[in-house]
Amino acid sequence: MYKVKVYITLRESVLDPQGTAVKGSLQTLGYSSVEDVRIGKYLELTLNERTENIDQAVQEMCDKLLANPVIEDYRYEIEESVAQ
Amino acid sequence: MYKVKVYITLRESVLDPQGTAVKGSLQTLGYSSVEDVRIGKYLELTLNERTENIDQAVQEMCDKLLANPVIEDYRYEIEESVAQ
Repeated sequence: MYKVKVYITLRESVLDPQGTAVKGSLQTLGYSSVEDVRIGKYLELTLNERTENIDQAVQEMCDKLLANPVIEDYRYEIEESVAQ
Repeated sequence: MYKVKVYITLRESVLDPQGTAVKGSLQTLGYSSVEDVRIGKYLELTLNERTENIDQAVQEMCDKLLANPVIEDYRYEIEESVAQ
């Protein structure tokens, strides 16, 4: 079994209204030292051992479905875990 | 400046319908080796140097606002970055 951790973030140049709202809430709660908040997605995929070209497969999944390459960047880590 | 990376995931025991939908879509696209998908959130906070007790502050932010401790787990990493 492979465990793949995918991190999807908005590109630097793209506005993040959700992050801005959370920043405002944190400041209202008294955390005035918060300068910026950016919100992204974190996915954990579990792939079975029959996966071929796992690196290429994960890149394709991100490009086709998981991330929007126009406004988002992604990075991922592949971990091999013991079958249970 | 501190950069804090926060990872928020659903607890193992909590159903993840969004993840199940993404798994279905990936399988429809031909990635039949995908066994499971879990979706969480990834936040990047930027805190300024005047932050005191940064570890405790981030824990409080997560407990009060960013995560729902009933159904979600969180972990975070604190990085010190050079002021720009």
